[in-house]
Amino acid sequence: MFFASDNGGPANPEILAALTRANEGYAMGYGADAIMDEVRAQLREIFEAPLASIHLVATGTTANSLALATLTNPWETIFCSPTAHIHEDECNAPEFYTGGAKLTLAGTEDKMTPDALRAAIEGEETRGVHGPQRGPVSITQVTERGQVHSLEELNALTAVAREYGLNTHLDGARFANALAALGCTPAEMTWKAGIDAVSFGGTKNGCMGVEAVIFFDPAHAWEFELRRKRGGHLFSKHRYLSAQMQAYLADDLWTRNATSANAACARLAAGLRDLPGVSFDFEPQANIIFLHMPRATHQRLQAAGAVYYIMAGDVTSGDPDEPLPARLVCDWSVTDATIDRFIETAIG
Amino acid sequence: MFFASDNGGPANPEILAALTRANEGYAMGYGADAIMDEVRAQLREIFEAPLASIHLVATGTTANSLALATLTNPWETIFCSPTAHIHEDECNAPEFYTGGAKLTLAGTEDKMTPDALRAAIEGEETRGVHGPQRGPVSITQVTERGQVHSLEELNALTAVAREYGLNTHLDGARFANALAALGCTPAEMTWKAGIDAVSFGGTKNGCMGVEAVIFFDPAHAWEFELRRKRGGHLFSKHRYLSAQMQAYLADDLWTRNATSANAACARLAAGLRDLPGVSFDFEPQANIIFLHMPRATHQRLQAAGAVYYIMAGDVTSGDPDEPLPARLVCDWSVTDATIDRFIETAIG
Amino acid sequence: MFFASDNGGPANPEILAALTRANEGYAMGYGADAIMDEVRAQLREIFEAPLASIHLVATGTTANSLALATLTNPWETIFCSPTAHIHEDECNAPEFYTGGAKLTLAGTEDKMTPDALRAAIEGEETRGVHGPQRGPVSITQVTERGQVHSLEELNALTAVAREYGLNTHLDGARFANALAALGCTPAEMTWKAGIDAVSFGGTKNGCMGVEAVIFFDPAHAWEFELRRKRGGHLFSKHRYLSAQMQAYLADDLWTRNATSANAACARLAAGLRDLPGVSFDFEPQANIIFLHMPRATHQRLQAAGAVYYIMAGDVTSGDPDEPLPARLVCDWSVTDATIDRFIETAIG
Amino acid sequence: MFFASDNGGPANPEILAALTRANEGYAMGYGADAIMDEVRAQLREIFEAPLASIHLVATGTTANSLALATLTNPWETIFCSPTAHIHEDECNAPEFYTGGAKLTLAGTEDKMTPDALRAAIEGEETRGVHGPQRGPVSITQVTERGQVHSLEELNALTAVAREYGLNTHLDGARFANALAALGCTPAEMTWKAGIDAVSFGGTKNGCMGVEAVIFFDPAHAWEFELRRKRGGHLFSKHRYLSAQMQAYLADDLWTRNATSANAACARLAAGLRDLPGVSFDFEPQANIIFLHMPRATHQRLQAAGAVYYIMAGDVTSGDPDEPLPARLVCDWSVTDATIDRFIETAIG
Repeated sequence: MFFASDNGGPANPEILAALTRANEGYAMGYGADAIMDEVRAQLREIFEAPLASIHLVATGTTANSLALATLTNPWETIFCSPTAHIHEDECNAPEFYTGGAKLTLAGTEDKMTPDALRAAIEGEETRGVHGPQRGPVSITQVTERGQVHSLEELNALTAVAREYGLNTHLDGARFANALAALGCTPAEMTWKAGIDAVSFGGTKNGCMGVEAVIFFDPAHAWEFELRRKRGGHLFSKHRYLSAQMQAYLADDLWTRNATSANAACARLAAGLRDLPGVSFDFEPQANIIFLHMPRATHQRLQAAGAVYYIMAGDVTSGDPDEPLPARLVCDWSVTDATIDRFIETAIG
Repeated sequence: MFFASDNGGPANPEILAALTRANEGYAMGYGADAIMDEVRAQLREIFEAPLASIHLVATGTTANSLALATLTNPWETIFCSPTAHIHEDECNAPEFYTGGAKLTLAGTEDKMTPDALRAAIEGEETRGVHGPQRGPVSITQVTERGQVHSLEELNALTAVAREYGLNTHLDGARFANALAALGCTPAEMTWKAGIDAVSFGGTKNGCMGVEAVIFFDPAHAWEFELRRKRGGHLFSKHRYLSAQMQAYLADDLWTRNATSANAACARLAAGLRDLPGVSFDFEPQANIIFLHMPRATHQRLQAAGAVYYIMAGDVTSGDPDEPLPARLVCDWSVTDATIDRFIETAIG
Repeated sequence: MFFASDNGGPANPEILAALTRANEGYAMGYGADAIMDEVRAQLREIFEAPLASIHLVATGTTANSLALATLTNPWETIFCSPTAHIHEDECNAPEFYTGGAKLTLAGTEDKMTPDALRAAIEGEETRGVHGPQRGPVSITQVTERGQVHSLEELNALTAVAREYGLNTHLDGARFANALAALGCTPAEMTWKAGIDAVSFGGTKNGCMGVEAVIFFDPAHAWEFELRRKRGGHLFSKHRYLSAQMQAYLADDLWTRNATSANAACARLAAGLRDLPGVSFDFEPQANIIFLHMPRATHQRLQAAGAVYYIMAGDVTSGDPDEPLPARLVCDWSVTDATIDRFIETAIG
Repeated sequence: MFFASDNGGPANPEILAALTRANEGYAMGYGADAIMDEVRAQLREIFEAPLASIHLVATGTTANSLALATLTNPWETIFCSPTAHIHEDECNAPEFYTGGAKLTLAGTEDKMTPDALRAAIEGEETRGVHGPQRGPVSITQVTERGQVHSLEELNALTAVAREYGLNTHLDGARFANALAALGCTPAEMTWKAGIDAVSFGGTKNGCMGVEAVIFFDPAHAWEFELRRKRGGHLFSKHRYLSAQMQAYLADDLWTRNATSANAACARLAAGLRDLPGVSFDFEPQANIIFLHMPRATHQRLQAAGAVYYIMAGDVTSGDPDEPLPARLVCDWSVTDATIDRFIETAIG
């Protein structure tokens, strides 16, 4: 019963099979492998963006940092949500890669709103050279609290950015989960919605470690390539990144995985929703649940070996009815049986 | 007939098998996986260094940059050979990770000598705060020209560093090839020879993409962990790095691979050595040959589909007897048959 | 009638006279001048800190950035008020000098409170290497809104910092104004209150351009010297910085200037306080007033040539009674006559 | 008898008088002072460059670092002479301000030659993203060894840069001394010779501390302004920088000073040239002499209180005839009497 993170489960067997296939014979290094040509073609087709520049890296922090560094001058500030991964979970990687840009938090909630974004931009009055200059807007989709921006919401955010002449970046570590939730096309969730650059996640959704960075304006390509090399993120044996992404995109593996994970999360949410003392902090929309459950419920789950993050409080002692906050994440691999066992254990 | 690089060949089947084994069930991320505990134990035993701090990253540039950044202040200069990978082939990654440190080139030859190192250190008179301050010494073993420092040479270099109170780093992207060439122990080639930190390569010697960074003084561990995370180099699904390194170290795979590559290189060198018009720029000591061959020889090899780097000159036209420089690299997977075919083609 | 900033007025004649005196003959450069020895002795005596390390730079941004960079690792976050100069008015200089550290805003008000600081620190749960690590606390005294922390308030803030093992920095661009307001000793307002490093301002209080950075722990001295040189902030003809600071400290010029400026501000506040439609945003405590005045009042003042910042709104047209926010700053040189004329004009 | 540096002498009385004049009344800060308008007009006229962007900073390291950072991407390398100030005497400031660019040394002599520059550029084969990318060429005029590039030499160097599409920067810390030596116009020595950006020194030639940065392409202006602010180099009381530069340029003070210094140096060189045991390391061309003098000569000079740098060796004991290297620098203020006394002392 592992719900700690969607980086804890296994990779799809298809991914491993692809590595094995890619392991035949010799290949040119550093992105000049033939499989990467396929990946470029796949993503351009999927995104309906024949000119997009496509790059692979191994981690999500890297995808975000390099994409943002390419769009940000060091004297600028990046607008993001207060719960954005780039703000809370990357140990200052965006600040490092941009050479010292700032992050300005738009709003107090998980999901950035146009009003909060506008207020944040206006709050960063630059007053000539004195204040930080306004830089790109980074939107997280799925958010860190499991929320999905609707296409209307995305369009409204990018409209504010455009009004101020700012670029936009989508942190899509859970891109596929958002897409499955919205039932739209990749183009609709990105460039048709005004997004300039995307971190397109693979790692959390069934790969071993691969993310694509996509710029819809190919003018950014060469600078990104240099930044990736200089950051140590250009793989000599690049074919093993290519192979993962190739298999991830082939036969809809990526959307199948995300659909499974979202469905698992919905089943879990349905089973927990009406339990006494259980309340959801956010309405689950993809594969993540933030909820409160009574201490006694946590104790039963922990005793049964369930693995997940309890966000605050001492689970071992105290009022058994006191609700303690927790996060539950479903990956592609979790089974209905596991979910049902978790729910039964929670019911007690 | 692929001799372009030791990053062009396949990974060992054992590495793939290890990934498959590691892909069972759930695992904690970010280096907290159980396989990483094994890797730490393996490397501490192999290096006879029970307190060493051990960290995995995916690329050699990363291993070097993060190791050096941990040992270097931004106002210092790193002493290295003019042909060092950190100087010539990392697009300023060491400068980036150190926050703007300089590299000072010691000597004009491939292999750093104690005299050249001393002259370089003395040349960087710091004159109070004015000049760059003296930072660590980075030694490449195997060098970029295929040379191997003897233990005496290593000890002599670190003695100079120690005299000035400078730390020492070993770029061991081809650590195993050097070890196989010297026939010594890992401890003898590192801490017993005065080395403080090692980039211990796996990628070029049969892995897909994994390098260990080893500090013999564990006081550096936490800073390195923070630098790795901030650089985007901490893998969430870390077990796939651990599994590669675990398999690489198990059953002597790493030394077997290196021994094979070195033997292949020796066979290749022996076959080419006495051909008319062929001369070696450096005496091959590990798995790399720098040589000159007549244009006509190159033309025969290229026509037969041999892949390797011609370092200068136009191979397609000109005096057939004119010698053109080239680099030939053997990896673990090259067969005697391939080498013999290369030699036969060269003979014509 | 110039109330735009305390960087708009002339320097004291004593400062100019000191430059003239210092301009005799030859002097060693880069801080090795004899006048700097005097400055060190003066500041150590004034601060009752015989071991303090003392350094001069020319601007306040530099003093803050270099002091903070010396106390902060790039993967850390600096805690400061949301209105701190380092956050709002230095175009990411602290982020630049620290190599990419973050700033975490403590509270929503101008003056940092212990509760807000504690909440901010607790909010930066580091979760291992994932979040920004906790760095120093920077307190602005006088604040950007003209408020002065009492000694009790300062002690309470540093107590929180100490509880978490964090260093503390005082941005004292208006150090003398705060000291004059509190009537305490420099030691009481700094190291006796738990402060580790001080930006001790001269520029805004009658100098041309000089600030001292003081570390009470001299272990920071050498790193600061290197950072200053590397930042281009070490003056070759350093005696002209030394001479300014020497004259500023001699004969209590610094406290006389601050007392004058504070008295002028009090006179101005008293004259404006009870005017119809006038309200103070903050109770003036040093030499800065933030207030609202009716548009008509602004119009009279602007017509009479008064120079100051109107913080929002269109002064030229609209309801004459509508209050518009403004900032008024008094420097050492403003005369009672000017203040009275300003008040009379405001009265109309 | 002070010949240690041209940063050791007094400023011209005109500079002090200008500060006193500038110290009247109130002025807008941060470069918006009226005197700065004058400075812009002066420099544009002097350089025959009506569109040039003009910026003031207080130190030469700053001028060089900010100018180069504006022209250099972090993944590039700057080409300069091995004795360039930016390489030897700025404690990695260029590396810091560029965010980690490299410096590539062109040649082994003091004065960069076109052949050495071409060889250095060719040596930095970029091989795609792997090597450092080629960045600007920085030429020092007067060189650190007192040599002056002729207009032909400058044009030949910039022609090589242009051939590779590289920008060019002139480190003119001693711009006026070079101009006086060549007897040409500022335009001829800069944009007419293919120079894109100039560090135009005032500090070493009679000012207290002011340097202008001039870009002939005004497209660089805004980025420079942001970099200056972010570096802490924008003076709030900017009028005191403006006033120095205004007075420096008025009434040809700058060229008078340089002519005096060069003449003093010529007189000194003439007096020392034929002394027994004296040899010049470089033929003096501006205001700096590098020479060898017998130990006994040094001993007499030191005993008489002469101040200058002995570059190597122990002056106090050893063979009295052994020549020891030294540097002698003449500033604008040194008198004929002082020079003659130095020569007489040297003669003994």
